Formats: sequence, structure tokens, C-alpha cells
Amino acid sequence: MSARPRARILGLDYLWQLPPGPLNAITDVAGVRVGHATVWFGEGVLRAGQGPARTGVTVILPHAGNLFTEKVPAAVHTINGYGKACGFEQVRELGEIETPIALTNTLNVWRVADALVDHALRTNPAIGITTGTVNPVVGECNDGDLNDIQGRHVAAAHVQHALETASSGVVAEGAVGAGTGTSCYGWKGGIGSASRVTPAANGGFTLGALVQTNFGRPEELRIGGAWVGQRLRPPAPPPSERGSVMVVLATDAPLEARQLHRLCVRAGAGLARTGATIGHGSGDFVIAFATTRRNQRDASSLVTTQVVTDEAAVMAGLFPAVVEAVEEAVLNSLCAAETVVGRDGHVRYALPVAAITSWLAGD
Amino acid sequence: MSARPRARILGLDYLWQLPPGPLNAITDVAGVRVGHATVWFGEGVLRAGQGPARTGVTVILPHAGNLFTEKVPAAVHTINGYGKACGFEQVRELGEIETPIALTNTLNVWRVADALVDHALRTNPAIGITTGTVNPVVGECNDGDLNDIQGRHVAAAHVQHALETASSGVVAEGAVGAGTGTSCYGWKGGIGSASRVTPAANGGFTLGALVQTNFGRPEELRIGGAWVGQRLRPPAPPPSERGSVMVVLATDAPLEARQLHRLCVRAGAGLARTGATIGHGSGDFVIAFATTRRNQRDASSLVTTQVVTDEAAVMAGLFPAVVEAVEEAVLNSLCAAETVVGRDGHVRYALPVAAITSWLAGD
Amino acid sequence: MSARPRARILGLDYLWQLPPGPLNAITDVAGVRVGHATVWFGEGVLRAGQGPARTGVTVILPHAGNLFTEKVPAAVHTINGYGKACGFEQVRELGEIETPIALTNTLNVWRVADALVDHALRTNPAIGITTGTVNPVVGECNDGDLNDIQGRHVAAAHVQHALETASSGVVAEGAVGAGTGTSCYGWKGGIGSASRVTPAANGGFTLGALVQTNFGRPEELRIGGAWVGQRLRPPAPPPSERGSVMVVLATDAPLEARQLHRLCVRAGAGLARTGATIGHGSGDFVIAFATTRRNQRDASSLVTTQVVTDEAAVMAGLFPAVVEAVEEAVLNSLCAAETVVGRDGHVRYALPVAAITSWLAGD
Amino acid sequence: MSARPRARILGLDYLWQLPPGPLNAITDVAGVRVGHATVWFGEGVLRAGQGPARTGVTVILPHAGNLFTEKVPAAVHTINGYGKACGFEQVRELGEIETPIALTNTLNVWRVADALVDHALRTNPAIGITTGTVNPVVGECNDGDLNDIQGRHVAAAHVQHALETASSGVVAEGAVGAGTGTSCYGWKGGIGSASRVTPAANGGFTLGALVQTNFGRPEELRIGGAWVGQRLRPPAPPPSERGSVMVVLATDAPLEARQLHRLCVRAGAGLARTGATIGHGSGDFVIAFATTRRNQRDASSLVTTQVVTDEAAVMAGLFPAVVEAVEEAVLNSLCAAETVVGRDGHVRYALPVAAITSWLAGD
Repeated sequence: MSARPRARILGLDYLWQLPPGPLNAITDVAGVRVGHATVWFGEGVLRAGQGPARTGVTVILPHAGNLFTEKVPAAVHTINGYGKACGFEQVRELGEIETPIALTNTLNVWRVADALVDHALRTNPAIGITTGTVNPVVGECNDGDLNDIQGRHVAAAHVQHALETASSGVVAEGAVGAGTGTSCYGWKGGIGSASRVTPAANGGFTLGALVQTNFGRPEELRIGGAWVGQRLRPPAPPPSERGSVMVVLATDAPLEARQLHRLCVRAGAGLARTGATIGHGSGDFVIAFATTRRNQRDASSLVTTQVVTDEAAVMAGLFPAVVEAVEEAVLNSLCAAETVVGRDGHVRYALPVAAITSWLAGD
Repeated sequence: MSARPRARILGLDYLWQLPPGPLNAITDVAGVRVGHATVWFGEGVLRAGQGPARTGVTVILPHAGNLFTEKVPAAVHTINGYGKACGFEQVRELGEIETPIALTNTLNVWRVADALVDHALRTNPAIGITTGTVNPVVGECNDGDLNDIQGRHVAAAHVQHALETASSGVVAEGAVGAGTGTSCYGWKGGIGSASRVTPAANGGFTLGALVQTNFGRPEELRIGGAWVGQRLRPPAPPPSERGSVMVVLATDAPLEARQLHRLCVRAGAGLARTGATIGHGSGDFVIAFATTRRNQRDASSLVTTQVVTDEAAVMAGLFPAVVEAVEEAVLNSLCAAETVVGRDGHVRYALPVAAITSWLAGD
Repeated sequence: MSARPRARILGLDYLWQLPPGPLNAITDVAGVRVGHATVWFGEGVLRAGQGPARTGVTVILPHAGNLFTEKVPAAVHTINGYGKACGFEQVRELGEIETPIALTNTLNVWRVADALVDHALRTNPAIGITTGTVNPVVGECNDGDLNDIQGRHVAAAHVQHALETASSGVVAEGAVGAGTGTSCYGWKGGIGSASRVTPAANGGFTLGALVQTNFGRPEELRIGGAWVGQRLRPPAPPPSERGSVMVVLATDAPLEARQLHRLCVRAGAGLARTGATIGHGSGDFVIAFATTRRNQRDASSLVTTQVVTDEAAVMAGLFPAVVEAVEEAVLNSLCAAETVVGRDGHVRYALPVAAITSWLAGD
Repeated sequence: MSARPRARILGLDYLWQLPPGPLNAITDVAGVRVGHATVWFGEGVLRAGQGPARTGVTVILPHAGNLFTEKVPAAVHTINGYGKACGFEQVRELGEIETPIALTNTLNVWRVADALVDHALRTNPAIGITTGTVNPVVGECNDGDLNDIQGRHVAAAHVQHALETASSGVVAEGAVGAGTGTSCYGWKGGIGSASRVTPAANGGFTLGALVQTNFGRPEELRIGGAWVGQRLRPPAPPPSERGSVMVVLATDAPLEARQLHRLCVRAGAGLARTGATIGHGSGDFVIAFATTRRNQRDASSLVTTQVVTDEAAVMAGLFPAVVEAVEEAVLNSLCAAETVVGRDGHVRYALPVAAITSWLAGD
């Protein structure tokens, strides 16, 4: 995937007012790691349950420690709830996440969630015996136009592989992991990531975004100011919008859950900048977490910590950071994704980045 | 009103496992003050807009300072949204309250809210000029069966009086302030309050409740274990349930807004212990605040403070405290309220406490 | 299980004002079927992952047809979100359910959800290929004090068995299906059900409830007016409250999703009547559906149907029906459940119904 | 105001795929009427409470009948709850609106709400006496940079005037009514409206939007593809963002409240297309209603009516209609607003439409 460019090649830097972190990825938030497992086998005609497989799983780990014993503040937000995301009820109640976040295909959500439980049990053998249970958080997109989605080919071993190989460095983007079989505005979508650093006056915090893109009708796509979707249509878009998009946000600002939810809401504006109109069938969800505060499972009752006041400059700095990072992450997913031939010969083409770049520059 | 007893006379102490604070009222939470203004004039036939008036306003102040510059963490919860409570959207977003909380009759909500704005402007002349605006929080019950509710007789001067006379001592209960014209289970209801102190192992925090009771059908009333409503019916109940109940919770535990919302949810269990089934027309709302943390309007971005972890014992202690305090506050409102003759000769009778007490004791 | 009584033996009929349906169970709602699969093997010391198993699955089917092509209006409600219920986001968005509802143990949620997907794929082979995906709805309670919960012993075959044997007749209650290993107020809990028929003036509709009970501290239990938990303590309660309760409501009134949500809210009052205070660790969730209206997947855009206005008598009849049915269903779960010896010799005793009955009658 | 153009002059028609109704305004939805009252007096230095006044009220009436006796299905949505909108709790519970919707300035919300109550009482004298109370719905923006907002100069007579002069024809836009003193992206904002008609295959329904614009930082403004805010800055923007935006949506599709809420969510995408990032201090709210179904206050319990299934084409047609109509309504508010000189000589300049048009066309 390394041959594909990132969205910065499009010459859109003027669009963004905040600088990215060193990697321009969610891993710029210290401690955050991302891992993928791609599941790809078979060609040709769909034999339901047997392939071809064009799918995978992507995991995001808020820190390198044991998440069950050191939970992180978190929030979830549902833009359009036509989706199967799981684990949201407990995040809303307790304002924290206690497993890695996993993204996968729609029908694989529950097997992946179960695999996250496997992982939690291995590292916390007291779960369900002398301590409470565990709440896996999983999001999904429907990759059924390219993938044998009925096959639920993402197995526990894939999840384990993604967790073990998760790294804090460059994030592989495009048709990888949970983005292997997804489509975005009729082109090949997938995983994208980006980050922003807020000005010193706003605290100098880092905000990272990672998206799994699978939404949008071809005619809707906008890149920067240009309405690309009106001028350029993909050769073979999916027959209908059965999309979705998952957005994961991370920050090192010491926010509480309510404030993280406020970040989630701004993700919608970032999606809209690329043309999104939130289709009926598109399950659009946002998950945000903060890495700085940790909720010790066995903490004493009162803990002294740093908090952020909403009126102060921290939030005002983070809101546009979310919008910019989500917008760029979506574009990164489009730029990075290679053409994929999936089940029944369905082809989802890579966005012709070079052509668009020259068009945006000179036309 | 001083001649009327409180619910402890019923001999129900066995029902409650946690001790009350010294006053067994919301004012046991240090700094909290309560004020009333009762509006009572006219007799006989209703002349819409001219009386008779049987209504008022009750204000709850989280602390003695300037709430606009020292906001307190807060949450709201809607059990049944058939009501006109105002100010809730901003409390949900920012997790804080910046005015006193006022309770009044349904059609008076907006005049009382406007009067809270008057009050905020007097003490904060920069509002709307060089700083932001202000969000008054007002709840209500429909006292129209006794009161000329169309008259909206609670004026700004009444609100100001209630604010100026608010005190941290004994809370006047029954047919006073916002409880002047309300009905509960067909009897005269009104204002009630109670408190609980959690065990030292749970932090020894104080939880106070204040209720404005105007709900319930006569046959539903339960007191302790006894199904009083089956045995004893009020002589002249309201013709139909156009009720409501407002619950205000205060605590000195340093909770954040999400945790205060968790307290709010438990208030419903306290109401249910008295027989409530949450009628269609009953606007049932809960507001909770914490007095310990203060959000300075001009605080620097990062503030060091104490917080509570949900898993620790603080929350586990507060939850039953909410249930008990709300239950007892409702009973206090019933025990304290005198018989009131209102518009058109409508009579709402005082609960016959002595008879019930002997029945509960000996029967 | 047939030897155990139902709650009516307690002589509490005076508590309830509405008549039950013929079976006094959720299956009184025409078309509703319930099925169980109980998983019980092993004795003695827990060997994590290998037993002993004291668990199972309970399924509720809104009608006998294909739920994916004939969805039913539905709503969900979270009282305390410390739980792993799944499928809720889509129910909130679309207001409908498209699979049977399954209840199981906490760590088994995702395997059971995946099994519901299996079932949906068998009957709807186009899912994920030429039509959309499917949203399984699963609730859970933590039965880990009796059961080897890490083992996730409820397999797809058990779900399939429960679906195939689901019946519209008498509902097996107590330690069966998803109730096999649960505890309630320190006693053996499990599955309970009850129903109510609203008066003709309120439309004469049927409201059914089914609960999976796993909540409450021993000292909290109240039965009718009597505070049983103060007088009678179970010999060997679970060491701490890691409870939960799932409530499923069904009705033949043609309600829309918003109105079904209003029913869900009233379930909390039914739980509170048995003493519940909504503990921190108790995941308390409610799911409601209506059987009368069916959302055809391929319906034309405009459909003519019957709807209910909130102001009219239908809702006013259903609200107390929910409270009564949920209260009685909880008591039924307690009365019906036999003593169970689980992992590590943990014993959860059956409620001594005869002793309580005589006490309630004569004491 | 008639000399100012509408956004269509910008040559952006290519941006929009759906045709507008005849008026390209919310009044294209049959029966909907809009009225304004503008409050404008005084010049020069602010004397708090005495002017200068640059404010007003705008009312939207869903139909020409008595809204209290013929309520319309409705929903509300809070994007960012830093605002004082009132009436939302009851709309969420009952899914209907029973008064006109009024928009005004932030500190005037409660006086305007009280005036809506006046209006309801005049036409429904039984309110609060023999029938229930009434729930006014009011939204607001902070016009304090131009207006003496502490003065709360919108009086009951202004509301009455707006109601009496409300018309189903052309909607006055720009610095009129509730838009008199608002600012948008640093330019003069105000009232804007637009509409769309969905294709026959989607039911051919009309969707209208009306906005009160008071949001956005100057550098954020985007018009069509062009990032205008980067190239063109207003001479004298407000010192900080104390914004807000109110969006009102109307449709003649027979939607229920849940579906109307789905429309509300899409309004955020329309706002984002103009550059919005949802600032901390911006209270962003959406209200939607449907004119076709009417909830008779005294209807019998079961009513036969037409409903829309979510899967069918109606919703899919309405979603992009919302996005387009909201985007164009915002641009209309900017194009129509004249320069306004307000309190303390603060000037908010009209958007230089001609210059932008030529720039968009030729540059």
C-alpha cells in the first residue's frame, strides 16, 4: 500500500489551519497504537460463507497498559444509528472504555467482540469470577459488495494478530484491515487517519482521528472546494448505499466523558466537508477517548486529577481540530486505497489522485 | 404550617437504612439555601387572570456566592417529558448550573425564568454585553385545580423575595411556595425535603432532596409497606391527573455531570416507593447538582480537582441515599401540607396523618 | 420446575388492579412465542472455560412469521447502562426489531448475537448480498456466581433449539434458559412473566412482560407491602451486587416506537415496587415491541395503518399495566426458581414461598 | 430589504440537485406561514435596558388552524446545547408541537414564550382550567453585539403582530424579525429560507427550511466550493463567537416524530457545507414538523392514517433535500441581510454579494 499517496498531495493544505502531528495520524497521540489484520482470499463468484473474502479488522489501543485495570475516559455518538456498533450502552453510563476498540465488517461484529473478550480474559483471568465482566467496543461497516460478508471471515486469530502487531508508528491506510472491502463515494475507501495539534494558547494538545470509510454516493464527493463527484464518477459504484462510517477520535487533553462527547459531535462537520449527507442506510458512529486520565479499577474513592473547563481555550482549540482531522482522514482513506476486485468480479476503483491533483491545481 | 408533622411521625424509620442529616432536608448539604414566596389571594369562583391565587415559587441556591461566576456541576433527567421545565439543553451540554433553580406553576415558568435573568443581570451586569448570556433553570407543576393558573401570578418581585429570604436552615414544607396549590395522590401535596448521610466507608457524603409533589392517583398511594390508597381515599380529588413532580438533588460529593445524572435516575425509584406509576400527563423531572466543585467562568484551562471513580464506594453509597431521601421528601410534602380551599371552592384535603399513623402502628 | 408456585399464591392479588390474560404471561399477546435452552453440566470447583455450567438462553419472538421481512415497531430503554446489551443503536434509529430477542449471560452476548445472525441468514439468504444486513437484539445478566461465565457455554445450537421449540403457551419460569444461573435479592432468580389486559374503555389491549432477574441486595426485597428483605435473609447471597435485569414488554396495541419507549420507562416503577434501587453494577434494560403493526421491508412508501394518540385512553391504560406486569413478573421469577448449586459449591436458595405466604397472610 | 438578492444570484445552482418549490422558502409547504416583527430603535452608545434595539421575533405556523387542538408531529434536535431553546422536553416526549414556533434573541426567550401562552389562552380559554396546559416552543440567537439584549425589547405585542401578519407567501429574509441583530461568519446574518421538492419516485414531497443565522468565525465561510472566508474578511466582525443557529424544517410528508428527528440530524450537514465547525458557544438547534398528520386533542383512541416506512424512498428523498435547503437558507440569510449599525456603533456589514458572484464566476 506504500505506493499510494496521502491527501496532502492534493495540494489542499490551504484548507487546514492547524498543523498535524509528526505522523499526521491518530498515533500522534502518545501511547495510541493501531493494528490491522487483513483477510483476503478467493476470487470470482460469491459462494456465501466460502468467499471471496475482502475484509479484516482494525484495532485501536488507547495505551500500552492493561485497559481493563486502567480504563480511559470515553464517549460515543450516534449520527445515524443504522448500524451494529456494540458496547455503547456501558460507555454512555460509565464514560470509559476498558478494551481496545475494534472495527470490522457488519456481520462480523459479534465474533470480533467475542475475540476482544478472549483477549481481556487472557490478561485479566479474574473477569466474571472475582471481578466484573468486560465491555468490548466494536464498530463496523458493510463491505458486502466486495466481500463474502455472510462468511464472517474475521476470526479470533485475526483479532489477536491485530492486537499483537499494533504499533505506535505510521498507520497503514486504505484497503487494509477493516477497510479492505469498504467503498466511499463509489470509489475504494478504507482506513484513513490524520491528526492536529492545537495552538499553545489552546493548550497544545494533540487530536487524532481514524476512520473506516464506507459511505457516500458518487455524485456527492467534494474535495476541498471542488465538487469532484459532479465531474468524475467511478466506473462501477456499488448498486446502492448500504454504507456506514466509523470515526475514532483520540486526544491527550484530560477531558471527561461529557467533553469527549462534544468532540464526537464535531466529527459530523468533518464528514460533511467531503460531501456526506448521512444516508438512510449509513450507520455513522463516533467514538472518542482521552489518554491522560486513567480510571483505576481499584482506585480509592477520591482521586486528584487535572480537568478542563469548557469555557477555557482547550475545547475551542479541539473543536476545529476534530473537523480538520476527520476531513483529512476521510481523504487519506480515499487516496491510499488501491483498486480492489472482490466477489462476483465487483471492482471498486482507486480514486485517480493524480488526475484530481492536477485538476485541483490548474484547471 | 409549623403545626403539621413530618413523615418520621408515621413510624416508618425502619424503612430507611441511612441516617438523615441534622435537618433532614436539602439544606443539610453545606451552603445550600432554600427560599419560598407564596402567592395567595382571593376566594371563590375562578375569574381567569384575576384569582383566586394559590401558587408561588420556591428557589434552591447551591451556594451563597455568585452562581454565574462560580457555576456548579449539574445534570437533568426527564422521566416523563410532559412538562415545561426550561434550561435543560444547556445543562446537558455544559454539565453545570449558573442560576438558582426555581420551581413554580406550569404557566408561570417563563415569567419566573425571566425574573431569574433579572437577578443574574443585577449581579452580573456584563451578561450579554461583554460576556455570554445566562441560562435560568425552572421547573413546574400544574396547580390549576386550586389556582388561577392562567393568571401567572408569580411575579418578578416574588422571585426576588424568595431569593433574598432563602436560608440554609429548616425548609418550610407543604403548601408553601411552589407547593401552595399542588396535589399529590388526591391529597394536598407541596414542598417536601429530606436528606441522608452515607456511611464513612462510602465517604460520609450528604445527599439532600427537595420535591414539589403534584402527582399520583388516589388509589395508588403507598406509605411504607401499606397500601394506603386502597383503604383511604381523599374526599375531593382532582378530576384527572394533570400532575407532575419536580425533584431537586444536592450533594457535597465532588461528582461530575455524568455521575450526577446517575443520581437523577435513582430518584424514580424513590417516587415509585410511594406508589407512582408515572402517568401520561405527569411531567416528572429531576435536577441534581454538586456543591464541591466550582467551575470558575474565567478559570485557566487546566484545573486540579478531586474526582470520584464510579467503581469506588462513593456512588454505591449515594444511590440508596437518593432513593430514601426522595421517598421521605414526598411523604414530608404530604404530611406537612394543610388543607387548602382553592378556586371554585375546590378543596384539597390534608393527609390525615394521625389516623394513618395509628393504623400503621396497630392495625 | 412445575412444582414451584407462581406469585399469585402469595395472596397479593389485592395489589393489582388490572386482570391478567389467560396465561398471565407475555404469550398472552397474540403471536408472541418464548423458547428456552438451558445449559447445565458439571459440578464442584470452577475450572474456567470447562464448567460447571449453569446458564442458558431465552428467546422471545414477536410473531410467527419472518421478522426480517416483517419487522415490528420497537423501542429500547437503558435504566442503568452497566451492561452489554446489543442491537440498541439501530432500534433507536429505525424504531423496529428484525430478529427474535435473545437473553443470555453477560459474556455470551456476542456468541448468541452471532447465532441470531445464523438464524436470519438461513431464512433470508439475501442478507448482505442483495439486501441489507441484520441487527440482532440480545440482553444479558451476569450469572458468574453460579456459572462458569468465562466458558460462554451457550452455543449456536442452543439458540437454534430455543428458537425451534419456542411456543405460544405457558412460559417456563425460574431457573430455566437465561435464568438458570441468575440471582435476585440474594435468592435464586431467573425468568418470570406476567400480563395485564387493559379495560375496554382503554381499548382492551394486552400487555405482557418477561424478565430475567439478577438484581438487588438481600435487604432490599419487598413483596407487596411487606419488607421481606428486612426479616428474611438468604443463607448464602452473592458476595457483591454484579446484577442486572432485562425486561421485555409486548403489546398488541398499535403503538409507534416513541410510544413503546414511554412504556419502557414505566418498567422501572414495577422493578422499584419489589425494592430495587438500581445498583451501580446492575445493567438494567427494557425492550418493548408491538405486534400489530408490521413494517414490510419492501412496502411502498405510504402505508395506511391505525395509530394511537397519546392523549387518548390507550396509553393511560397501558402505563399501570406495565408497572403491574413487571412487578408480578419479578415475583414470578422468584417464586418459580428452584435452589441451584453452582460452581465452587455456591448455593443460591429458592425463596421460601410457603413461609412468606403464611407470614403475609397471618402475621 | 427587497433590494438584496438571494443566493441563487451567486450562480451556485449546480451545487443543488433537487428543485426548489415555487417560492424556494419554507412557505412552499402548504399551509405554513411565517411572520416577523422587527424591533429597531435608538442609536449610538448602549444604555443597558434602553437601547439601541436591533432585534425582533419570527414566528412559523405549521397550519392556519388552532394548533392547540390540532397538533402536528414534531421533533427537536440539539447539535450544541449552549442555548436557551425552550419547550423541547415535551416535544421529545409527545412528538408534537401545539403552538407556533417563535425565534428571538437569547434573553428574550421567556418573554416570547409567555406571549405564545397569551396567544394560546386567547384562542383556547379552557387551558389550565378544564384541559391541560400548553407548551410554547421558542428558539434564540444572541444578538448582543448589535442589540441591547439586556433590554429584552421583544414584547408580547410584537409576538402578536408577527402572528397576525404571518403569511404563506414570500418570506422576508436577512435583517428582519429574529434576524435583525444577528451575525454570521462575521457578516450580517439573519433570517433565510429555502425549499426542495423530492422526485416523484421519492413521493414528490416538499421540504422547507428556515434559519436564524448567528454562527461561524469569519475565516470559516465557504460558499459552494469556494473558501470565501480565507479570501475575504468582514471589516468589523464580532469580538468573539457567541453565536447560535436555529433551523426550522417543515414537510408535507406524513412522518412520525422519530422520522422527523432523522431529518433534523441532516441539517447539520447543510450547516457544515457553509463552513460551520459548531463552536463551543454556539447553541445549534433544529426543530422539524410535518403538516399532514394532525393529532386531534380529543381524538378517539385509534386513528387510521398514512405513515411512511423508513426503508422506502420517501426518507431517502428527504435527506438530501434537508441538506440542500439548509445550506441555501444559510446563504440566503447572508445574501439578503443589509448592513446594520447597532449599539455602540458596532457595524455588521452586508456580504458583498456582487463581488463574490463575479469572483465565483470568473476567477
